[in-house]
Amino acid sequence: MDKKLEVCLTPALIHLYNVEEYVVVIIDIFRATSSICYGIENGAEAIIPVAEVEECLAYKEKHPEYLLAAERNGEVVKGFDFGNSPFSYTTEKVAGKSVVLTTTNGTQALYLSRKAKQIVIGSFLNLTAVCSWLKTTGENILLVCAGWKYNFNLEDTLFAGAVIEQLKDGAYQLDDPAIAANDLYQLGKHDIKQYLKKTSHSERLKQLGIEEDIAFCLNVDTTTAIPVLQDNRLIRLIF
Amino acid sequence: MDKKLEVCLTPALIHLYNVEEYVVVIIDIFRATSSICYGIENGAEAIIPVAEVEECLAYKEKHPEYLLAAERNGEVVKGFDFGNSPFSYTTEKVAGKSVVLTTTNGTQALYLSRKAKQIVIGSFLNLTAVCSWLKTTGENILLVCAGWKYNFNLEDTLFAGAVIEQLKDGAYQLDDPAIAANDLYQLGKHDIKQYLKKTSHSERLKQLGIEEDIAFCLNVDTTTAIPVLQDNRLIRLIF
Repeated sequence: MDKKLEVCLTPALIHLYNVEEYVVVIIDIFRATSSICYGIENGAEAIIPVAEVEECLAYKEKHPEYLLAAERNGEVVKGFDFGNSPFSYTTEKVAGKSVVLTTTNGTQALYLSRKAKQIVIGSFLNLTAVCSWLKTTGENILLVCAGWKYNFNLEDTLFAGAVIEQLKDGAYQLDDPAIAANDLYQLGKHDIKQYLKKTSHSERLKQLGIEEDIAFCLNVDTTTAIPVLQDNRLIRLIF
Repeated sequence: MDKKLEVCLTPALIHLYNVEEYVVVIIDIFRATSSICYGIENGAEAIIPVAEVEECLAYKEKHPEYLLAAERNGEVVKGFDFGNSPFSYTTEKVAGKSVVLTTTNGTQALYLSRKAKQIVIGSFLNLTAVCSWLKTTGENILLVCAGWKYNFNLEDTLFAGAVIEQLKDGAYQLDDPAIAANDLYQLGKHDIKQYLKKTSHSERLKQLGIEEDIAFCLNVDTTTAIPVLQDNRLIRLIF
């Protein structure tokens, strides 16, 4: 029988899926999963996603050598090493290090997917690497969009559509969200940056002054590492 | 300031909106809201949506003259007057009558939207009528897709996109789900029936043997009545 290839459009819908039956890809394009892919590519030993700034600090007490990453309202939190910009995750900064990262949407998606067979991290940066690996799993696949405050967003959905584009000839059964995501990708694929300019999010991000981050997060296939969740830490998948 | 024109992709996301701030359009294309539009157009005095077959029966005890409509697994429930097919809502059958209708997805969407400023019923049948009226309200508009078992479905989203198509020049602020719905409508509008053939739902409906219903529900602008919720009853909006 065909395997399933489905899209959970927001973490608020994840209870509708038996995540135990799936390999899950977490998607939070602006900027958590893009930064994570870039950091793991650049040799970070582990990236530890947490929901709250306070949790970050608790890690630091136990492990003073850990780097802390947190932003609130677009500013690096005082006393932290850096924020959520992918440019913070260069080899110079993260190679051989563990980074504790606070995210909101991304962490929720990870937490709510924790019973999945396996959880990997996807972004445009490692798109083809993730897709190639997914094809080898032979498992049902659930693409979980972190979305924006538990609601649907275009950029995460578009990325889900890009994954489906690479997998859809593999005789997977698509659900309606997957069909929609892939159709939206058809509309946006020729110029994703331009397409996403019309999103509500785009204006908000512009106001945060992170347009360079946005452009960076839309680079396709610049990395090959696949971050995988193991004991609450994201590390490089070896396969 | 611009009014909002937003889409709630499934009833499971409705808690993300302050429904009090919106006029809500409930959308359950296959087949609840299409049948309701057709019934009200054809002179039904009221259509009373309920969630359970048992509730239908309770109405009947109090009001023996009410018609009861319920289906389970595509069959009219024993002892009921008819099922959920729009063809049951002809003038001959419903003019001057009250109909108690069990729906699942549609009723949930109605119930969860109950605090809205006003709730009307939309379908392709009354598309332009609903849009023309919405333009006159000057209110924020929330298009609530009933979806399928609390998840996203294509047909309801496509209809939301069709509404947006008629309203989007009116200086409304669209959220991401609204942008996506309208983009999907661009892809499907030239042949909605053909477009929807690829949905997961379509196969299921085919198996129920209700392809004629489906075709009927995709007729555009065949009616002008706008059903509005008043004291838990859907009646014809007078304006």
